[in-house]
Amino acid sequence: MCMDQSEGKSAVVLLSGGLDSATVLAIARRKGYRCHAVSFDYGQRHRFELVSAKRVAEAAGVETHRIIRIDLSAAVGLGGSALTDDIPVPKDRPNDGGIPTTYVPARNAIFLSMALARAEVAGARDIFIGVNAIDYSGYPDCRPEFIEAFQTLANQATAASAQNGQDFTIHAPLINMSKGQIVSLGIELGVDYSLTHSCYDPDENGLACGHCDSCRLRLAGFREAGIEDPIMYQHTRKPDQQ
Amino acid sequence: MCMDQSEGKSAVVLLSGGLDSATVLAIARRKGYRCHAVSFDYGQRHRFELVSAKRVAEAAGVETHRIIRIDLSAAVGLGGSALTDDIPVPKDRPNDGGIPTTYVPARNAIFLSMALARAEVAGARDIFIGVNAIDYSGYPDCRPEFIEAFQTLANQATAASAQNGQDFTIHAPLINMSKGQIVSLGIELGVDYSLTHSCYDPDENGLACGHCDSCRLRLAGFREAGIEDPIMYQHTRKPDQQ
Repeated sequence: MCMDQSEGKSAVVLLSGGLDSATVLAIARRKGYRCHAVSFDYGQRHRFELVSAKRVAEAAGVETHRIIRIDLSAAVGLGGSALTDDIPVPKDRPNDGGIPTTYVPARNAIFLSMALARAEVAGARDIFIGVNAIDYSGYPDCRPEFIEAFQTLANQATAASAQNGQDFTIHAPLINMSKGQIVSLGIELGVDYSLTHSCYDPDENGLACGHCDSCRLRLAGFREAGIEDPIMYQHTRKPDQQ
Repeated sequence: MCMDQSEGKSAVVLLSGGLDSATVLAIARRKGYRCHAVSFDYGQRHRFELVSAKRVAEAAGVETHRIIRIDLSAAVGLGGSALTDDIPVPKDRPNDGGIPTTYVPARNAIFLSMALARAEVAGARDIFIGVNAIDYSGYPDCRPEFIEAFQTLANQATAASAQNGQDFTIHAPLINMSKGQIVSLGIELGVDYSLTHSCYDPDENGLACGHCDSCRLRLAGFREAGIEDPIMYQHTRKPDQQ
């Protein structure tokens, strides 16, 4: 893949530390963007993902990596999610098309708004996010309609757009890809997936459970790509290999 | 003013503790909404406004009042504003139509996204914000185009809208009012403006400076309404009376 016209431009990349965002960061880097990674410490039970986010950011050679604290739990009247509150993470959940209890209210609107502020301060006009509307958990804020609406908002929300007519672009390069295609592309781009973390409910050592939605989507993606997932799971044998 | 069809419905009201948001809260209460007030401790130098927010919320009889901490300062790569960082607050600034240094990048996008999360959790579908596009400081995220874009986003961003087709409405009842009209309406609704705080640069006792944009807009509003501003300023005589 060649550098395109983005060479030298700055971008903000939302980086959770998971498989998707690590791939998106690699895409932005390959396109020639100088990348400012942003992660959130929002009270998630899988806070271990921030360790991965740091490793992934370092490996990708980002310009900056900021971890922003923001309490999205029920303690401040938000949350009500299995990811932030005392609600069990569903395991081996059949995909019924519904929105699971791991949904965090308005999370991507909040994260993208913070990324927009970071972009304005860093002088970036491109924001990358690893949402995916194919192999995903059913969250409404991962769909193309949401991303389009946020881009329209971004271009009304800042001094940069109001004063200088500078348009923000929200890039969601994975949105129509299967998990297997994402893994294959990431491998092609040299992503080291051993640095990433996807599990919603890791043990105290950060080992993945293998049974939450996020683990199951990840494992299915590696299986589809015909590649072995390099991370460790809580059981010696990966659940999908039993 | 009579109760309308909103009676018994819940609303989230963004409450800074200033003149505008106190008036908006009174409007929402008069319309019959049960109100969930949300304030932000975002590293603002005029953090004293949160004391006012508490007083205003109590006086209005809200259902809940949450103060959410969120660092928007340069320390986390955001901010770069005279309100959050070591930049002097401009005094007696002529209104040149530009965007002043008190602008906080993407602030209302961030605040409304958090309010949207709070609304989803509290079961509210109405969000009230005290933005004003007439007598204001030139912030881009106070204009009608911004509010409309956020409402479109809100209806793509949440489980409530995706699952149940429940539409969120962003109410900005002050957007086309002059500051004088806002004060007159607030007095009619029984707002106790002695509880409010507007100054960007108060002294250690919370006394207003009288010279920042926010003080000057406030003082001009009371003057236009022909009503005396009940708060104390740093000088015995209010600056506009000298």
